[in-house]
Amino acid sequence: MLPVPPDDTRREPDAKLYPLLSAINSPDDLRRLPVEKLTDVCTDIRHFLIDSLSSNPGHFASSMGAVELTVALHYVFNTPYDRIVWDVGHQAYGHKLLTGRAARFHTNRKLGGLSGFPNPDESEYDTFTAGHASNSISAALGMATAAAIKGERRNVVAVIGDASIGGGLAFEGLNNAANSANNLLIVLNDNDMSIDRNTGSLNSYLAHLTASKGYNSFRYRLYRLLRKLHLFNDRNKGRVIRLNNSLKSFFTKEQNIFEGLNIRYFGPFDGHDLPRLIRVLNDIKDITGPRILHLCTTKGKGYAPAEADPSVWHAPGRFNPQTGKRITGETTPAKPKFQDVFGSELVELARTNPRICGITAAMPSGTSISMLQKEFPQRTFDVGISEGHAVTFAGGLAKDGMLPYVAIYSAFLQRAYDNIIHDVAVQSLPVTFCIDRAGLVGEDGVTHHGVLDLAYLRVIPGMTVASPADADTLRSLLLTSQSDSRRGPWAIRYPRGTAHDSGTAASELPVGRGRRLSEGADVTLLTIGPVAYEAAEAVREAAAQGISTTHCDMIFLKPLDDTILTEAAQSGRPIVTVEDGTTDGGLGSAVLEWLAARGYNNIPVTRLGIPDRFIPQGTPAQLHTLCGIDTPAITRAITDAARNAKTANK
Amino acid sequence: MLPVPPDDTRREPDAKLYPLLSAINSPDDLRRLPVEKLTDVCTDIRHFLIDSLSSNPGHFASSMGAVELTVALHYVFNTPYDRIVWDVGHQAYGHKLLTGRAARFHTNRKLGGLSGFPNPDESEYDTFTAGHASNSISAALGMATAAAIKGERRNVVAVIGDASIGGGLAFEGLNNAANSANNLLIVLNDNDMSIDRNTGSLNSYLAHLTASKGYNSFRYRLYRLLRKLHLFNDRNKGRVIRLNNSLKSFFTKEQNIFEGLNIRYFGPFDGHDLPRLIRVLNDIKDITGPRILHLCTTKGKGYAPAEADPSVWHAPGRFNPQTGKRITGETTPAKPKFQDVFGSELVELARTNPRICGITAAMPSGTSISMLQKEFPQRTFDVGISEGHAVTFAGGLAKDGMLPYVAIYSAFLQRAYDNIIHDVAVQSLPVTFCIDRAGLVGEDGVTHHGVLDLAYLRVIPGMTVASPADADTLRSLLLTSQSDSRRGPWAIRYPRGTAHDSGTAASELPVGRGRRLSEGADVTLLTIGPVAYEAAEAVREAAAQGISTTHCDMIFLKPLDDTILTEAAQSGRPIVTVEDGTTDGGLGSAVLEWLAARGYNNIPVTRLGIPDRFIPQGTPAQLHTLCGIDTPAITRAITDAARNAKTANK
Repeated sequence: MLPVPPDDTRREPDAKLYPLLSAINSPDDLRRLPVEKLTDVCTDIRHFLIDSLSSNPGHFASSMGAVELTVALHYVFNTPYDRIVWDVGHQAYGHKLLTGRAARFHTNRKLGGLSGFPNPDESEYDTFTAGHASNSISAALGMATAAAIKGERRNVVAVIGDASIGGGLAFEGLNNAANSANNLLIVLNDNDMSIDRNTGSLNSYLAHLTASKGYNSFRYRLYRLLRKLHLFNDRNKGRVIRLNNSLKSFFTKEQNIFEGLNIRYFGPFDGHDLPRLIRVLNDIKDITGPRILHLCTTKGKGYAPAEADPSVWHAPGRFNPQTGKRITGETTPAKPKFQDVFGSELVELARTNPRICGITAAMPSGTSISMLQKEFPQRTFDVGISEGHAVTFAGGLAKDGMLPYVAIYSAFLQRAYDNIIHDVAVQSLPVTFCIDRAGLVGEDGVTHHGVLDLAYLRVIPGMTVASPADADTLRSLLLTSQSDSRRGPWAIRYPRGTAHDSGTAASELPVGRGRRLSEGADVTLLTIGPVAYEAAEAVREAAAQGISTTHCDMIFLKPLDDTILTEAAQSGRPIVTVEDGTTDGGLGSAVLEWLAARGYNNIPVTRLGIPDRFIPQGTPAQLHTLCGIDTPAITRAITDAARNAKTANK
Repeated sequence: MLPVPPDDTRREPDAKLYPLLSAINSPDDLRRLPVEKLTDVCTDIRHFLIDSLSSNPGHFASSMGAVELTVALHYVFNTPYDRIVWDVGHQAYGHKLLTGRAARFHTNRKLGGLSGFPNPDESEYDTFTAGHASNSISAALGMATAAAIKGERRNVVAVIGDASIGGGLAFEGLNNAANSANNLLIVLNDNDMSIDRNTGSLNSYLAHLTASKGYNSFRYRLYRLLRKLHLFNDRNKGRVIRLNNSLKSFFTKEQNIFEGLNIRYFGPFDGHDLPRLIRVLNDIKDITGPRILHLCTTKGKGYAPAEADPSVWHAPGRFNPQTGKRITGETTPAKPKFQDVFGSELVELARTNPRICGITAAMPSGTSISMLQKEFPQRTFDVGISEGHAVTFAGGLAKDGMLPYVAIYSAFLQRAYDNIIHDVAVQSLPVTFCIDRAGLVGEDGVTHHGVLDLAYLRVIPGMTVASPADADTLRSLLLTSQSDSRRGPWAIRYPRGTAHDSGTAASELPVGRGRRLSEGADVTLLTIGPVAYEAAEAVREAAAQGISTTHCDMIFLKPLDDTILTEAAQSGRPIVTVEDGTTDGGLGSAVLEWLAARGYNNIPVTRLGIPDRFIPQGTPAQLHTLCGIDTPAITRAITDAARNAKTANK
C-alpha cells in the first residue's frame, strides 16, 4: 500500500447519546453484557450509524439490516479467535463499531481513515479482504480447513448476502464445503437485494424457502428437543439427520439445494429477532461439519426512509437524519456523469440498431444501463453478480448476430479475464466492454480501483482498447464501436464521476487515431483518458515557464496511433506519458515498445501513472496527487523533461 | 491467428472398414438414414476413432463415451441451423467425423490441421470455442436468447460434462437460464469423471440422482402419456408441472437442484441406449423454456482397456489397437518432466514443513500434485474445475497460517485473475502459484497456450514472478519461496514437457537475482525460462560468427535484477530479450521500463517472444520457429543487434 499517515483523530461516542455503545471497546465488553441489554446495543448502533453517515456519507442500508446479526455473532462467538468473514463490506459497519473503531468512524472512507470495507491491515477482527462479492465461503473454508489441519477447535463464520451467494465463486465454495473436514458456518443474510434488486433463479428459490417456514421451524424444534435429551451427538448424528430428512420428505414438498450439496440447512429465521438469533447460534455453533443458517432481514431496517427505498439508501450520500431528506450536492454547473453519457448514447444507438443489446452484472443503475433497460427491456440483461457469465453470455449473443455492450466496473471485470480471452477474443466476436469506474475510484479504496485494465486488456490479441477524455469522445467511441466493420472486441474505459462535455453529437472516429490538443517544440505529452484535462492545464503552466508542448490525446491505447508516434519520434523531443492506470504495462510501456521496435532508442520517455503499489482510499483528487498524476506533477514532468533534454544536447 | 497454411491433405475413410461413416459427408447424410442403421454408424465411429487415435494420438475416452449422444443430436436436430455447443472439446471428435472432417482427421492437433477442440474458424458446426470448461451453458444461453430476440425458432443445445457443470461459470449460467425467454436444452453427459475422478458435492449429488431412476422414469412415462393424449401443451404446462412436482414429493425423497433453479429436469437415462435417446430428444425438443437432460455414460465406452482405466485413457498417446497396449516413447535418455520435478520437490518440502499444503483444480495428475496427495492427503485439495475457488481457498488457508502451493495450468489461471489480486495479493498472503503448461503448449492449441501470464501477473503489486530454466532452478525456487520472509504471493511458471536437470539439490536463491551464463562484449542477451537453452545454443552460433554475448538467465521477472541490468545498461551493448510469452507486456517491456525509468535511452532493445496474435496448434518446436524464438531466430537477433550497433557507432 502506498504509505499514507493514518488519520488517528478520535471522537469518542457520546455516552449520553449512545450509553451502551460508548462503553464497548471490544467484543469482550459486549460479551460481558446480559442478553437483555443487547437490544439496546442495537438501538445505539443504529442511532450512531444514522448520525454518523448522515454527515459523512457511506454505505447505509446494508449495515442497518445487519445490526442484530452483528451483535449476535460477536456475542456468541469468541472473536477474534473465532473468525467472521464478511462477504462484501457494505454490511460490516456495525462490526467496526463493536471492534474498537467507533471513535475513528468519522474518518470512514477518508484518506488515512478507516476503510469502508473490512480490511485486515486495519484490525485483527477483519479477517479477509471483502471488496468483491462472493469470496467469503471460499476464504472461510480455507480458514476452517487450516484450523482442522492444525487441530484447532475454532469457529469460522462466513456471512454472505443473497446476492453474493448467486456468484459462481460462492457456488464453487458451497460445492467444496462438504468435501473436507471443517466446521464452517455460513450465514445467509437474505434481504432480497444487492445494490439493485436481485435476479437469478437462486433468488426466487430463496424466496420460496422463506415461504415454507412451517416445516423448517418444526424441524428445528425437533432438533433442539433431541439435543436437550442428549439424543443428538456426533455419534448418532448421521442417523438423526437421516430421520430428519425422511420427516422432511413427509412434511414438505420443498427441495433444499443446500442439503443437496451436503450442507446442513437451518432456517429461515427472522434476522432481527435478536434473542432467538442468539439461541439459534448457540444451538448450532458446536455441530461439526458445514452448516448454513438462513436469515431474513430488511435492508435499511430501523430507518423508515431506507426500508422504503433500499436501492437509493444503499449509499445515499449526506442526509437529514430527522427528515430523511437526502442532501444533494451544491448546485455546481451540471456536468454529466460518464455513466449517464454512456447510458443515453447506448439508448440512442439501440433505437436505430436492433442488434444492440446491453448486459450488466448487478449494476444496472451504477452503470446507467438502466436507461436501456427502461426503453428496451427485451434487449437488456442484468445477470446478477456473475461477471464471468455476463461476458460469456455476451459472446453467445454476439456469435448469433447481436452486438452486445457489457457494462461492468473495471475492478470487477478482472473476474471475467478468461471469459474475455477465451469466449470473446479468440473468436474475434464483436462485444464491447464498457468499463466504468476505471482508474482511481476514490473512497471505495484499494479493492475498487480499476488501475490494471489498460495493462491486462492490451495484451489480448485483436482487442481494441480506448479511453475517452470527455463526454463527446465517449459518444463518438460508442458510435464507432458499433460500425467498426473489421471488429473483434472493444474495450472503452472511463472513470467514475463527471465528464467535460461540449455537447457535440457523436461522429465516427478513425480507429487507432488520437488527436492533437496543442503544438510545441520542447516536449511531446501523450495522455489517455480524462487526465488529458489536468495535462492540458499542465501544458499551460509549462508554457508560462517558457516550455512549449505538443500534447496528444491518444484516445486509443490499442492500436496505437502511428502518425502521432512517428512524428513524435522523428522530432526527437522527449516524451511524457500520463495515464490513470498502472505505470507498468499501460500506455507508457506501449509507447516504449513502439519506439524500441522501430529503432528509436534515443528518445527519453517519462511515464506517469499509478505506481506499482496497492493504492488506498481518498478523494480522487487526493489520490491523483499521491500518485503524481495531478497538474503540478505533470507540469514538473514536462519541465524536467525539457530541461534534461537541453542539458543532454549541450 | 498467426497465418499457417492449412493442411488440406485428405484420406477418405475406407468404405470397407467404415461402410456407413465413409458415406456421411454432413449431418444431412446421417439424417437420411433409417433409425435402425444408427447403431452401425456408432460402431463405425468407434472403429475409426480407435484406428486413427492409436497412431495419431489425441483425446480418446471422452469422445468414445459420447458417440451415441453425438449421433442422436445430429440426427434429431437440424444442425447447423440448430446449435450444438460442446463444453470442452474432448468429447467432440465424433462430431467432427459427422460434420465432414473424417478425411482430414489424420491432421488432428497438427500444425495446419484440424483443431483438437471445436473451433468456429474450422467449421460452421463448431459453434463456440471450447477449450476451457464450463462455458457452454452461458454461451448457449446467449445464442438461445439471440434467437428469441430475433424471433427465430432455433434449438440450442449445450452439452456439458458432470465435471464442467461443477464450475462456477456453469452455475452462473444455470442460475440465469430460467430468467429470460429461451428454449435452451442442456445435456448433462455424466460419466463421473473429468480427466481425473471428480470431486465436489454436486457430483455426489448427481450419483444420488442416478440412483433414483425409478421415480424419474415413472415421471417421464407419465409425461409421454400426457403428451400423447394432447394433455401437455404450452397452455396447461404450468398445471402439469405442478402436478408432476406433487407426484414427485409423493413418490420420492429426492431433491432436485435443477428444478430448484427452475430448469425442467429429465433423466437420468442411459446415454448409450441410442433408440431411447432419440425418442427422448424428440420428445423434449419442442418444449419451451430451459430444460436439462441427464445422461449417464461410460468414459471410453466400447473399448475395454479405456473403460477399465478412463483416467489413463483420457489422452493415452499412441497404442496398439488390438492389444490395448500403450506405446510409450522411444527410450530417449530420461529427462524429468517439469511437473514431476515440482511434485517431488513439494513432497520433499512438505516433509519438514507442516504448513505446506497443495491445491489443484481438477488436475492432480496433470500437475503432479498427486505426489503430495499420496503422501499428505490431509494437506492436498483437489477442488475440481473451480480455479477461482482454488485461489481464494488458498488465500483463506494462508491467512490462517498455512503455506499453500496452488498448481494450475497457465491458461486456466486466467480464470482466477481477480482472486489472485483481491483475495491474495491485496493482503500480501504467502500463496505460491505453480503455473504449469506455461508458454506454447503445443498440440492443444490456441485456447491452451499460456502466453499471457508473465504480462498479467507482473502488474500485480507485491507479486514475485519467476520462471526456472531447468529442473535445478525449479527446485531452488520452490525452496526459496518457502522461506522468503518478506513474502507476499509468488508465481513460478514452467512449461509442459521435460526439463534439463543436472541433479543438483535445491539451494536458496537470492530473490530478484538472475545468473550469468556467458560473458561477451558485443550483445547482452536476457532470457527467462527454459528458452535459455535455445538461447545458449544461439550464443554459441553467434560466437562462431565472431560475436560474443553476455547471456543472463533472469530467473525473476519481478523483481528484476538491478545488478544485471545496470551492468548491461552501462556497457552500452545492445540488448536482446527472449521469452516464451507475449512480447508486449512481458520481460522485454519490463526491461524497457527499467531502462527508461533510469534514463538509459541509448540502448537498442530487441524483444523476441510471442507476437500479438492468437497462436494455433503445432509441436512446441514448430511453434517456437513460427514465433521466432528458436535458436536460428535468436542467433539472427544477436548478430543483427551486434551489426546494427557497430554501424551506429561508426
